[in-house]
Amino acid sequence: MSDKTKNLSEESLAAHKKLRGKISVVSKDSVSDKNKLSLYYTPGVGAVSSFVAENPELARDYTWLNNTVAVISDGSAVLGLGNLGPVGALPVMEGKAMLFKQFAGIDSIPIVLDVHSADEIVSAVKAIAPSFGAINLEDIAAPICFEVEERLKSELNIPIMHDDQHGTAIVVLAGLINAMKVVNKSLDDCKLVVSGVGAAGVAIMKLLKLFSPGLTIVACDSKGVINSNRNDLNSTKQKLLDDGIISSNSDGKLSNAINNADIFVGVSQPNVLTIDMVKSMNSDAVIFALANPNPEIMPDDAKNAGAAVVATGRSDFPNQVNNALAFPGIFRGALDNRVNKITDDHKIAAAEAIAGFIENPSANEIIPSIFIDGLSKAVASVIR
Amino acid sequence: MSDKTKNLSEESLAAHKKLRGKISVVSKDSVSDKNKLSLYYTPGVGAVSSFVAENPELARDYTWLNNTVAVISDGSAVLGLGNLGPVGALPVMEGKAMLFKQFAGIDSIPIVLDVHSADEIVSAVKAIAPSFGAINLEDIAAPICFEVEERLKSELNIPIMHDDQHGTAIVVLAGLINAMKVVNKSLDDCKLVVSGVGAAGVAIMKLLKLFSPGLTIVACDSKGVINSNRNDLNSTKQKLLDDGIISSNSDGKLSNAINNADIFVGVSQPNVLTIDMVKSMNSDAVIFALANPNPEIMPDDAKNAGAAVVATGRSDFPNQVNNALAFPGIFRGALDNRVNKITDDHKIAAAEAIAGFIENPSANEIIPSIFIDGLSKAVASVIR
Repeated sequence: MSDKTKNLSEESLAAHKKLRGKISVVSKDSVSDKNKLSLYYTPGVGAVSSFVAENPELARDYTWLNNTVAVISDGSAVLGLGNLGPVGALPVMEGKAMLFKQFAGIDSIPIVLDVHSADEIVSAVKAIAPSFGAINLEDIAAPICFEVEERLKSELNIPIMHDDQHGTAIVVLAGLINAMKVVNKSLDDCKLVVSGVGAAGVAIMKLLKLFSPGLTIVACDSKGVINSNRNDLNSTKQKLLDDGIISSNSDGKLSNAINNADIFVGVSQPNVLTIDMVKSMNSDAVIFALANPNPEIMPDDAKNAGAAVVATGRSDFPNQVNNALAFPGIFRGALDNRVNKITDDHKIAAAEAIAGFIENPSANEIIPSIFIDGLSKAVASVIR
Repeated sequence: MSDKTKNLSEESLAAHKKLRGKISVVSKDSVSDKNKLSLYYTPGVGAVSSFVAENPELARDYTWLNNTVAVISDGSAVLGLGNLGPVGALPVMEGKAMLFKQFAGIDSIPIVLDVHSADEIVSAVKAIAPSFGAINLEDIAAPICFEVEERLKSELNIPIMHDDQHGTAIVVLAGLINAMKVVNKSLDDCKLVVSGVGAAGVAIMKLLKLFSPGLTIVACDSKGVINSNRNDLNSTKQKLLDDGIISSNSDGKLSNAINNADIFVGVSQPNVLTIDMVKSMNSDAVIFALANPNPEIMPDDAKNAGAAVVATGRSDFPNQVNNALAFPGIFRGALDNRVNKITDDHKIAAAEAIAGFIENPSANEIIPSIFIDGLSKAVASVIR
């Protein structure tokens, strides 16, 4: 652990211990006298309860349903730290609730689950769903996350998004749209190698292929290139092949696959991309090394090996791929525009809105800062 | 519906529509720059997540677990309105969250459930339990509420209380402690008739019998006195008989049972107690007519028929039995003093603390106002 990382860890522990909870629930009006109490609680509230029970579609006008997103995790894949369980996930979910408030004014409630099978997670989320206006699934391990999201989307009628998948995919697409302008290539003519076939990797590949059907995608997991010769593929990986999302004409390891590639997207492990591998890529290579906090290759190494554009997940290098560019605006838009399903079209529109914040993309500026004014509002406006 | 009730309903609907949610989630610090983001979210939060995953007993010092109470309902018994379902319950739960904040500074999260069997409710609550410091069950119909609370108390290690049962029972006991001083009787020598054997009625009877073993209790449901000749009793009612909580020596209807009673406690239906019934009670009768908003007998009628002390659930008459006297302090104390089970001793101590706020009880003042300074603090101090 570097001194810098160690210092941040200690600072973060101290800051959390001081706050004892990063978020708080407040009342929008006081109940400081009998009249207020009668108005907001019994007996007055009885009329509101009866009214919304009879008119459930109007409940969002009389309760906080119009502005709430539950951030739900079972703690099975917390950041890059693995399975920390529900209690370990809670600090991250509280942090995410802060971001929802900061960037989109959304009331967000962390819910950590003590159940871990797809059936149990789906049952628990469905049971509590009437409490919230929308649901952000978070840090649920692949492949369970895919089934959980798919079933919840089909069985509930409120916006649901697994942010590790789609938030990341949207921002990667936004970054690639601008990176292509920098290197003057078309995505449709490119070969892309993805390292990591977890939640983020799968969503990235699906969204990029949808956006750019001509794009050739080769996927590598820890055992090498995914192709039809492999007999150890789970159903998610097999489906990527069957659906033609990824190419079945490659073989071997990442070190082979990366040859003559135009783009590398890593959502895997530190240091899996070597300088020699970058050198074997086509000229004007684009590298998204998103493993956090330690990327697949350090940006300086990638640049020195000839990469034209480098993005990471870190805030201390240019071009940070940060889900917070996408999720606040997406949920803001879904809540405000009464969009109950977040579709692929929404994701592409959001990516284009984010990319559009950079007027003249350059190697060090393909992705806007999350602190730029109006970003979540611009994203929200295309979710309709 | 009276004009007054109609006006309040309209005012309440308008106030709710204006607020569009009575509560809100706020951040305790802003995440307005990269440093704050690194501290509260990735990468800094990773150290906190790892730490609390390894030391779950310390999680309350690093998250909002030390100050959160979920208010959970399936909407099966909303106020006196019956089964309004989860959406119908939400305005009440938001109101309750306001009270938790106002009276005890607690961050309270409304959770409404789309499941209604005891098994499903228990599963859903257990699944989300790691998200909260404590759980307030609310407006769940009898008899399911009894099984749900009992199982959750035995299967989870955080404070759990079904407020409709115990909050009401605690305040009734507090009121009766002072009422006995006004009429100069001892509870142990009294005959008490309870009308209504739902969540509140059962809890009231159990707590009073525990506090005062000599008290004779006769219970009436809508079919009359509960005794061993009845062959239509559910297991809860049967157990009240088997455990000797209620007397098995009475028969007939409420109109018979009330003869020579010293105390009437109604948690049932409007107008079930007539003037003639009050006249048939012992002198210095004490009447708790708690059906809301329309009590079992109007206070003036009860007084005119000879009652010495009358309490209701309403704020527009003296002696309001209001759960808000009890639950904020009880949960404040449980959270602060790390009490994981709320016991019968806690309930009795809370009742005595509430009763103790009236120095010289009189017919019109046996129960303190919920707005009196220091009340929830005093209650909290005995939960340890």
